[in-house]
Amino acid sequence: MHRVDINCDMGESFGTYIMGRDEEVLDYITSANIACGFHAGDPATMRKTVKLALEKNVGIGAHPGLQDLTGFGRREMQISPQEAYDLVVYQIGALNGFVKAEGGRLQHVKPHGALFNMASKSASLSEAIAEAVYKVDPDLILFGLAGGELVKAGKKLGLRSASEVFADRTYQEDGTLTSRLDSNALIHNHEEAISQVIRMVIEGKVTSVQGVDISIAADTVCIHGDGENALDFAKYISIALKEAGITIAKIGDFLGKG
Amino acid sequence: MHRVDINCDMGESFGTYIMGRDEEVLDYITSANIACGFHAGDPATMRKTVKLALEKNVGIGAHPGLQDLTGFGRREMQISPQEAYDLVVYQIGALNGFVKAEGGRLQHVKPHGALFNMASKSASLSEAIAEAVYKVDPDLILFGLAGGELVKAGKKLGLRSASEVFADRTYQEDGTLTSRLDSNALIHNHEEAISQVIRMVIEGKVTSVQGVDISIAADTVCIHGDGENALDFAKYISIALKEAGITIAKIGDFLGKG
Amino acid sequence: MHRVDINCDMGESFGTYIMGRDEEVLDYITSANIACGFHAGDPATMRKTVKLALEKNVGIGAHPGLQDLTGFGRREMQISPQEAYDLVVYQIGALNGFVKAEGGRLQHVKPHGALFNMASKSASLSEAIAEAVYKVDPDLILFGLAGGELVKAGKKLGLRSASEVFADRTYQEDGTLTSRLDSNALIHNHEEAISQVIRMVIEGKVTSVQGVDISIAADTVCIHGDGENALDFAKYISIALKEAGITIAKIGDFLGKG
Amino acid sequence: MHRVDINCDMGESFGTYIMGRDEEVLDYITSANIACGFHAGDPATMRKTVKLALEKNVGIGAHPGLQDLTGFGRREMQISPQEAYDLVVYQIGALNGFVKAEGGRLQHVKPHGALFNMASKSASLSEAIAEAVYKVDPDLILFGLAGGELVKAGKKLGLRSASEVFADRTYQEDGTLTSRLDSNALIHNHEEAISQVIRMVIEGKVTSVQGVDISIAADTVCIHGDGENALDFAKYISIALKEAGITIAKIGDFLGKG
Repeated sequence: MHRVDINCDMGESFGTYIMGRDEEVLDYITSANIACGFHAGDPATMRKTVKLALEKNVGIGAHPGLQDLTGFGRREMQISPQEAYDLVVYQIGALNGFVKAEGGRLQHVKPHGALFNMASKSASLSEAIAEAVYKVDPDLILFGLAGGELVKAGKKLGLRSASEVFADRTYQEDGTLTSRLDSNALIHNHEEAISQVIRMVIEGKVTSVQGVDISIAADTVCIHGDGENALDFAKYISIALKEAGITIAKIGDFLGKG
Repeated sequence: MHRVDINCDMGESFGTYIMGRDEEVLDYITSANIACGFHAGDPATMRKTVKLALEKNVGIGAHPGLQDLTGFGRREMQISPQEAYDLVVYQIGALNGFVKAEGGRLQHVKPHGALFNMASKSASLSEAIAEAVYKVDPDLILFGLAGGELVKAGKKLGLRSASEVFADRTYQEDGTLTSRLDSNALIHNHEEAISQVIRMVIEGKVTSVQGVDISIAADTVCIHGDGENALDFAKYISIALKEAGITIAKIGDFLGKG
Repeated sequence: MHRVDINCDMGESFGTYIMGRDEEVLDYITSANIACGFHAGDPATMRKTVKLALEKNVGIGAHPGLQDLTGFGRREMQISPQEAYDLVVYQIGALNGFVKAEGGRLQHVKPHGALFNMASKSASLSEAIAEAVYKVDPDLILFGLAGGELVKAGKKLGLRSASEVFADRTYQEDGTLTSRLDSNALIHNHEEAISQVIRMVIEGKVTSVQGVDISIAADTVCIHGDGENALDFAKYISIALKEAGITIAKIGDFLGKG
Repeated sequence: MHRVDINCDMGESFGTYIMGRDEEVLDYITSANIACGFHAGDPATMRKTVKLALEKNVGIGAHPGLQDLTGFGRREMQISPQEAYDLVVYQIGALNGFVKAEGGRLQHVKPHGALFNMASKSASLSEAIAEAVYKVDPDLILFGLAGGELVKAGKKLGLRSASEVFADRTYQEDGTLTSRLDSNALIHNHEEAISQVIRMVIEGKVTSVQGVDISIAADTVCIHGDGENALDFAKYISIALKEAGITIAKIGDFLGKG
């Protein structure tokens, strides 16, 4: 039996600014990565998003980012492992305040944007982030790029670590994502994107841009909640995976320890 | 047997800016109100301050403030009860992240500056703050001005609520603090300030500026960690209270339910 | 000959968050109040908005607000006149950087949101704001609520001061706006709103909710750039005023001194 | 006749946080780099610092930094040239608001911390910063590391560009500063530091750590306003340079074009 989790960034509105169609997208995903106020989100948005996720039985995750509201946490910053640890502890804690207030339980942590990218390539940043997660609550699941440093660091500490794959991104033969600077970084065709996911989940394989098949672990698929077609794609992939015989389930319900 | 807690604001440094002599003052207090990043403090400072407080066996409290770093949370803002609830949940959660990471347990919550002042006079703000505290963790203690709305709101919800008194402030016959705009708001003489505290703790009374004795509950005394004489005063009051036969103890160790 | 300026808040996007349909609305207004980064806006948005306004020959104004991004500068804060002065100088300066870089000239200053409301009722805040404007550049025009303290403070200093009226708000017999808390604060009918403006411009009169006609100066009309119908209303009022024989012109082109 | 400017970072206090002994240090320097609120400083501090500098006849410079208050603008961020341009225009403008309000004239611009370091090595960032300065006011002087990209970019545009040297840092034979990660990056001995400056000003030479003499332009010397010995060193270098026959003068009074 094949199972996969579908995760999406949520709670990215800020003050009077609305982003995403969270309430609708929540119907098609199993794990929500909720912004914690550093790169997006604010206390009111966090409260509302946690409440919605609980109502829709979606797993709740903290989505800590760099403290860069203007840049949406997408600009790399030269932070030390200690600084990464501190900002992850702070943001997990802040979101957890709302989760506890609503009577829920935090499921996972997924770093956002530049923090995610920096950590995927840096063992020391990943170890600091994994330690932050572990020390706040060793039952939390850490999300990381399949094959990247975050997953390794999480497993080393004994954290349940979820390997994340992307439907709409192409892969290199060393298992990394093709840089967005390259013209073939994105898969624009929905059917192709979904076929890639189905194969990753069922066979544990993906064909790299070099044409070579590589092994890949696919515990959770990341989809985007923003943009014109986000909602359509969410519906579409949800239906297609089920038709392929894949059970879509909250990561916390099926992921075992390392 | 008379018991009292001594609390002080801590962790008010920010980035490269140092404020207060926290490490030394922690030797003379029993409860630390730790800034949570909205009016002062930052993740690194929170981590260090939590660690120090645990080492020195001082009760740890969240000190949530208005989101006004430039004004140090001292400027009143027209926020709704819902906004007060949200910012308190967020900040308690954030600090609690560090407390859990260090293996400790959060003891109390004391709103800061303008938020404390606004709440002391507003039942609806106080109820929102008390609800925030209760929903995050009903075992937390809520600090409020003796006789003020925060203490009332906390008791109504079944929270343990600590009545706070000030050594160096004078009182009006209705039990409120004399406004800082009045020339007789402050008690500059240390002996006088300490005699006032001793009488509040032992007799439950204080003489108002109008010359009338009024009843006052004194569970915890607030001292200041900043300024030239802060450390001296901390030492001094600690010794004087003990000499008067008062046991200085963490509020969490002796405060019963309302 | 009757002349009036039409002003609208612009440049309220922030980072990845888009607000308003600035480029289109600019076709129907003569003065743009551009957010300066404290309550909304950011350096990139300021640059782009200044450039657009210059291309469309719209008068450029600084729109300084309280430092409250989460609350969009709509929550009153207890700031001193000195603090008001400082934040207005800072924000006028910041916007003027972009105006100079694009080869333009700053026309006016209109405080935003809670700062505008607080100033309209407070002589001391208004005097501080007027002084800030005057000291940065005595040729700037200060926008204020018709009959309010800002206009008075500006005239006292010798600044050109523009009396602002609202198309869609009702007036009290003392000349103030009906509070938004009252059910009859807003005029929902577009034709009614526009008739009110035409009468204010041509006759200098408006009928209060009490049924009494009062005198009112109408140098500039404020319209809203956000919301569903903003663009439609902008087009509509522009056409209706012209049909009524009113010339729509930049305030800087016709407003004389005191 | 040999002339040199002495510059120092100023106005780095923020809200209730005090940094540096600006008023005293201003007696020994000729150019002040005033923080503009992004990495340090706030509107009130900017006003006070501009006023003090004018009173003491010290040249006023904008000191724009990355938007990273927690990190004091010292952490590199992956910003685009356009983003660098925007934040420099914004911050020059903001400071210029206070300069104009006080009746002064802005003299120079010196990027701060990580922005300075990133620009010194990047032609595209330096060109964007130089363009920002030029478009706001082509009469401004741009400060940059002697031999670095900022000075080159400024000269290319026709800006007056000041080559900055450091008293207490050692140089590599390629003219760059020795990395702070190296043990021999700093010159701790005051006499040695000052001898190095005197030789740079008079002979235009400095001995690199490799023992080779290299050419260096020294228009302005950077000293630090913070730390225990800042004030003493300021006095000391001021006296020593005069004794060596060097005239200490505001950069704006002697620096010619190109």
